[in-house]
Amino acid sequence: MDFQKPRVTINEIAELAGVSIATVSRALNNRPGISQKTKEKVQRIITQTGYQPNIFARNIREHQTKLIGLIISDASNEFFKQVSRAVQDQAALAGYSVIMLNSDENPAEEMQAIQILRHYDVSGLIIASTDTHLDYHQLVGDTPTVFFDRAPSPDKQSQFDTLLVNNVSGAELAVSELIRQGASKIGILSSGVSTAGKERQQGYLKALAEYHLPLDQNLIYTSDVKQIKALDYAHELLMTHHCDGIFAADNTLLLVVLQEIKLLHRPNIKVATFDNTAWFDYFKQPVISVKQPTATIGHQAVDLVLKRIKEPTLPAKTRRFSVQLIRRG
Amino acid sequence: MDFQKPRVTINEIAELAGVSIATVSRALNNRPGISQKTKEKVQRIITQTGYQPNIFARNIREHQTKLIGLIISDASNEFFKQVSRAVQDQAALAGYSVIMLNSDENPAEEMQAIQILRHYDVSGLIIASTDTHLDYHQLVGDTPTVFFDRAPSPDKQSQFDTLLVNNVSGAELAVSELIRQGASKIGILSSGVSTAGKERQQGYLKALAEYHLPLDQNLIYTSDVKQIKALDYAHELLMTHHCDGIFAADNTLLLVVLQEIKLLHRPNIKVATFDNTAWFDYFKQPVISVKQPTATIGHQAVDLVLKRIKEPTLPAKTRRFSVQLIRRG
Repeated sequence: MDFQKPRVTINEIAELAGVSIATVSRALNNRPGISQKTKEKVQRIITQTGYQPNIFARNIREHQTKLIGLIISDASNEFFKQVSRAVQDQAALAGYSVIMLNSDENPAEEMQAIQILRHYDVSGLIIASTDTHLDYHQLVGDTPTVFFDRAPSPDKQSQFDTLLVNNVSGAELAVSELIRQGASKIGILSSGVSTAGKERQQGYLKALAEYHLPLDQNLIYTSDVKQIKALDYAHELLMTHHCDGIFAADNTLLLVVLQEIKLLHRPNIKVATFDNTAWFDYFKQPVISVKQPTATIGHQAVDLVLKRIKEPTLPAKTRRFSVQLIRRG
Repeated sequence: MDFQKPRVTINEIAELAGVSIATVSRALNNRPGISQKTKEKVQRIITQTGYQPNIFARNIREHQTKLIGLIISDASNEFFKQVSRAVQDQAALAGYSVIMLNSDENPAEEMQAIQILRHYDVSGLIIASTDTHLDYHQLVGDTPTVFFDRAPSPDKQSQFDTLLVNNVSGAELAVSELIRQGASKIGILSSGVSTAGKERQQGYLKALAEYHLPLDQNLIYTSDVKQIKALDYAHELLMTHHCDGIFAADNTLLLVVLQEIKLLHRPNIKVATFDNTAWFDYFKQPVISVKQPTATIGHQAVDLVLKRIKEPTLPAKTRRFSVQLIRRG
């Protein structure tokens, strides 16, 4: 929900002046097709209202690109929707526009996305890696780049600015809450591919250990990111293994779990997930969720890219944000 | 949810060959830094697996842009998330990548987005207009362009290919269902700005007339698209006007209505909305919804743009898709 105070827009200027938006644009850009009288009228209203023509339009006119390239890895995931929204808002404040491409969890697509964006000479890149061992130094070259959600080199210290969240403790909090709510046989459905998925699995194991629950490898399902098998796995957790709690490590996996719970009429299963959406507050089945600071991640990603555009030799930093447990049930 | 059969990816090639993705890329692109032996090995595996390097990478190498520009008007709206997903899928099949910009319901931002995308020489444009009277002929020039969701010239026959849905009958279906479920005093919260909002209001009026319910202007609230006042309006519908049913004309307005119903503990209020998400099936409060054919809209938008790239002089067509009522309650 956006409750920001709106700025004066070009169409309000057009309305106040009683002219078309194209005419306002002509006045702003000193283009022909507008009388001197109309131009003066429009310019008077612009002065009175304090209207600020967007910096980007000027950059385009002056042939400077002021673009940031954003590569997300899954367009259907609520987390990326929220972060990309924050990236756009923060970039706009600094006079940058954002061009977004979706790698669809495919490293080949991610490579191509980087090539496209560099080809178009973006000022900086913000990337949610597909989490393989791509040679990012070669790929991004000297384009200022910030990674988020997943580290560009999962096994070693990142040589790029990197924004992560504390996946282990987030998952631990969520699974501990399932246990406190009475679940004692808890299955996990996580993405086996991504670092985030692996870390969330670690958090699950930590919670079990903390509460002295036995570890059963049969209750640990790692689905590929495309969820090809997730429905089968959810079915097995409920029917074969008789779980009374499930931790779905992201929102797409949660949807599969909810679908299966509804199909099998098992409303008493306790459910937890990573990521939070506004819709969860209205569910019949209470869903424990872990809220990531998506706005902060998006804003800081832009701030770091802009900083690095100014000072390319700054040492790279990795930041891990803490997450918030949202109890429901 | 995506249950597609995955194609062979570059990282699978790398794994099979026991080399890095960068090495596969070198082999594919005939770049230095790879031995003849390794190159032959990679190429053998590529032949065996039937791996198809994405057409886009070749276009970039050959300096042909194969890009479609997509401008959506509200990144937080589920409808646009679904359509943009379908646009990306369909474009990928034809070897095009999609660059997305968000106008944020601001005509000035929309103008700039068009300028940016033309500056980057996209092959075609797909636009959800911010629904003002922009001079699109001047703005898009000779770039093949398809509009969706909102007509580029609301009051007259569009001179561009345009994909719309039947908003009037969709809203009429939803409000009729509210009445059949027992609601007799139904308020409406709709966007007053967009054509879609206005048409959905017409559908509301038609349903009332059909069921001989009195028309009360006090129950018709049009919020600006930013929802600055939507919470107050929802409060008034429930507390001042004692409505027993509410039609929220889009998902963002629905969220406001659900929030207010929860705050005021009024679970018996009947609720309907336009657009559908997978989450609605799990709500405590049943929500009647109208499902737009988002996949078809996205696919056809791409098909029409590609057709127009080939044959620029085709006469423009406007298509209206029918929508589907999803009963819950």
